[in-house]
Amino acid sequence: MSAVDSELLNKLGEVAVKVGLRLQKGQDLVMTSSIEAAPLARAIAEHAYKEGASAVITLFSDPESSLMRFRYGRDEIFDYAPGYLFDAMARAFDNNAARLAIAGDDPMLLAGEDPDKVGRSNKAQSAAYTAVRERITQFNINWNIVAYPGQKWAELVFPDKKAKKAQKKLAKAVFAASRVDVDDPVAAWQAHNADLKTRADWLNGNRFSALHFTGPGTDLTVGLADQHLWMGGEALSKNGIWCNPNIPTEEVFTTPHAHRVNGTVRSTKPLSHNGTLIEDIEVRFEQGRIVEAKASKGQDVFIKLLDTDEGARRIGEVALVPHSSPISKTGLLFYNTLFDENASSHIALGQSYWKCFTDGDTVQGDEVSARGGNSSHIHVDWMIGSNKINVDGITGNADRVPVMRKGEWV
Amino acid sequence: MSAVDSELLNKLGEVAVKVGLRLQKGQDLVMTSSIEAAPLARAIAEHAYKEGASAVITLFSDPESSLMRFRYGRDEIFDYAPGYLFDAMARAFDNNAARLAIAGDDPMLLAGEDPDKVGRSNKAQSAAYTAVRERITQFNINWNIVAYPGQKWAELVFPDKKAKKAQKKLAKAVFAASRVDVDDPVAAWQAHNADLKTRADWLNGNRFSALHFTGPGTDLTVGLADQHLWMGGEALSKNGIWCNPNIPTEEVFTTPHAHRVNGTVRSTKPLSHNGTLIEDIEVRFEQGRIVEAKASKGQDVFIKLLDTDEGARRIGEVALVPHSSPISKTGLLFYNTLFDENASSHIALGQSYWKCFTDGDTVQGDEVSARGGNSSHIHVDWMIGSNKINVDGITGNADRVPVMRKGEWV
Repeated sequence: MSAVDSELLNKLGEVAVKVGLRLQKGQDLVMTSSIEAAPLARAIAEHAYKEGASAVITLFSDPESSLMRFRYGRDEIFDYAPGYLFDAMARAFDNNAARLAIAGDDPMLLAGEDPDKVGRSNKAQSAAYTAVRERITQFNINWNIVAYPGQKWAELVFPDKKAKKAQKKLAKAVFAASRVDVDDPVAAWQAHNADLKTRADWLNGNRFSALHFTGPGTDLTVGLADQHLWMGGEALSKNGIWCNPNIPTEEVFTTPHAHRVNGTVRSTKPLSHNGTLIEDIEVRFEQGRIVEAKASKGQDVFIKLLDTDEGARRIGEVALVPHSSPISKTGLLFYNTLFDENASSHIALGQSYWKCFTDGDTVQGDEVSARGGNSSHIHVDWMIGSNKINVDGITGNADRVPVMRKGEWV
Repeated sequence: MSAVDSELLNKLGEVAVKVGLRLQKGQDLVMTSSIEAAPLARAIAEHAYKEGASAVITLFSDPESSLMRFRYGRDEIFDYAPGYLFDAMARAFDNNAARLAIAGDDPMLLAGEDPDKVGRSNKAQSAAYTAVRERITQFNINWNIVAYPGQKWAELVFPDKKAKKAQKKLAKAVFAASRVDVDDPVAAWQAHNADLKTRADWLNGNRFSALHFTGPGTDLTVGLADQHLWMGGEALSKNGIWCNPNIPTEEVFTTPHAHRVNGTVRSTKPLSHNGTLIEDIEVRFEQGRIVEAKASKGQDVFIKLLDTDEGARRIGEVALVPHSSPISKTGLLFYNTLFDENASSHIALGQSYWKCFTDGDTVQGDEVSARGGNSSHIHVDWMIGSNKINVDGITGNADRVPVMRKGEWV
C-alpha cells in the first residue's frame, strides 16, 4: 500500500482544480510535475476533465535526469537554457490556458553539485523563464501551486523516520495544511478565504506607508509601494477567474517599495533554494538595496542569487503570517517555501506582483517601477517572522499602529 | 532488483546516443519517454551529455494520465489537440536539435476506450504533429527510436509469465534485437549497417519499377516511385549527421508509387495501432488506393485510420525483411511496430519518406508528389511478409528478377 492515502490525494486534486484554479469549461491546463508526483497529476487531470478542460498538458520532470547534466555536462552549457518549452507555455497562457505546478521534489537535489554551476544554471533558467513568470506573476491567467509529499522531501523533514513512515507523516501534514482532511474541503477553503480577506481589508483600510519589523537581529523598515494593495487567499486573474494561487496559504501580502527599505533583518527559518539550504541569513538594506549579506550556511549560493540581476538585491513582496498559523503550529521545517512561508512573515527578493496595486489589472511596467514595484528574473521568499517579532504600521503622518506583537495579529 | 538489467540498459543508452543519433557536441536533444522508461531516459541523458550535448529536453508522458481524458473528458475535446509542445519541438529541430523517442508503452492502453473517440483523437493529434513529423521524415535532423521493455508491454508479449519474469524476458529480447548484448555494441552496429547497405545497393543497382508479392491471400504489385532510392541502416540527415533512425532495424525500404499499387494483400502479423489490435487485414488496391478493406479484429479502427485523410488509403513505404531476421527468429509477436516490422516485409499507409529518392536531401513536395511519393498525416506500417511470400522485382522492360523466395533473399 502506498504511503500516500489515495482518497485524500484525490481530494487534493479536486481542491487544486476547484479552489486553486477554479478551472473553467473549455480551458486548457498546463501542469508541471515530477514523475514521482504522477498520482497527484492524474487526480488533477481527472478533476480538470470533469470540470470541462479541453486539454491537460503535463510537463513531467525527472530529478535524476537533471543530475546527469551537472555530472556529465560540459562547463559551458550551464549558461545556456533552451526556451522552447517555456515559449510554448507562454503561448498557452496567451491562449487562456490555466497553470498548475506540483511542488514537492527533493529540496536537496543539487546540494552536492558545484555551486558555481548551480548558480549559473539557475540564472540562465530564470532568464529563459521570463515570459512565463511575467504571465503568472501578473495574473494573466488563473494559476495554482499545490504539493505532493515526495519521498526525498519526506526524508529531509523527518530524518529520524524510515522512508515509508516519513512519507506517511509528510502526507498527513500536507493534507492538513492544504485543508483537505475535512468533510468538505471546498467549503473549508471558502471560509478560510473569507478570513484572509478580512485581514487584507483591515490593512488596506489603514493605508500604511511602511511596516517596521523589530526582533532579535532585526530592525527593518519596509516602505510600501505607492498605491499598493494587500491581498490574501483568492485573487481575480485578468481572464476574469478567481483563483487561489497557493495551496496552502496563510499569508496576506503586498508590494514593498524597491527603494524604501532600510535596516537589518535576520532570517528565522532556513531557506531551501534549488537544492541548497541557506541558513541564518543576515542582510542590511540601504534605500531598498541589500548592501551587506551573509549566511552561516549556503552563503555562496545566496550571494550568487543576489547577483542574478539588479532587482535581485531588492524585495518585491512583504507578507504577514501569524506565528500561530496551522503550518507554524506543526513545528516542522518543511524546507519548501510553499509551506514555510505560510508559517512565518516573510519578504521576497526580486520580482514584485503587479497584482498588488489598487489598479493591478491594468497597471503597466513603467508605472509599477515609478511606484516602487521591483523587477527581477527571480522571486525568492525567505522567512523573517517568529514569536519574537513585532510589527508596526507607519502611517503617512508617521503615526505608528501596532500590527503584530510577538508574531500575532494585534 | 529491477527486472531490467541496468548495465545493458546503460549500453542501450550508449548505442542510442552514439549509433542511433550520433549526437554531436553542441546539439540539443529533444527526447520523449514514458515515465516508466525514465531509467533509459537517464542513461541516454548521461551519454548525451558525455558526447557534448548542450541540453537534453525530455518530454515524459504518463499513460494513466492520458486515460483520464478518455474517461472524463467532454465529447467535443477529442477533435482538439493543442500544438504548443509540438510547435516547440519543431522549433528545436529548426535549431538543429536531435530527436529521440523511447518506445515501449502498453500497446493496449486504449483498447478499452471508445473507438470513435480514439479515432478522432488520433486524427487531431496527427494533424497537430504535422510540423514535427515532416522534419523527422524528411531527415532535417538526426533522429532515433529505441525501446524500453515496459511492464505492460511485457505482460502482453508473455501473457503466461508473472509480471517480473515477463519483463525480464522482454528486456532480454529487446537488448538482443538492439544488439547491445555483445562486447562491443558500437562495432556490432557498424558491421550490421554494412550488411544492410549491401542489400540496398543491390536493389538500387537493379532499378526495379515494381515489386510483385505473392503468397496466401496476397497478389500485390507495388509500383515504385520514380527516382526512388532503397535505404537501410544508417542514413545521412540534412544537418550532415549520419544516424540510425531505428534501433533495432533489419529492413531495407523505399518509396512506392502512390498511384501504381494494384491487387490484394493480407497482413501476416497483427497490427497494434494506438492501443487497438488489428488482425487479419485484407485489402484490395486499385491504382494505389485501398478500395476494399476488412479485418477480423479492430476493423472499425482500421477503417477510421484509412479515413484519416486522402493519403491514408495509399502507401508511403515498402520494406523487405528476410523471414530469418533475428527478430523473426524469436518467434515473438511484439505488438510494437519497431520490432514486428523488422521481423517481416511490410508496407506503410500514409506519408512517404522524401529521403528515399536519389536526390532525397533537396527534393521538394511538388516533385515528390509528381514522382508518386504519398502525403498523409499518418505513417502506419503493417506486416505482409512470411515464409510463404515470394517477391519478384519487375524491371522497366517488364523482366522479372527473383528477390525473395519463401521469405528469404534469393
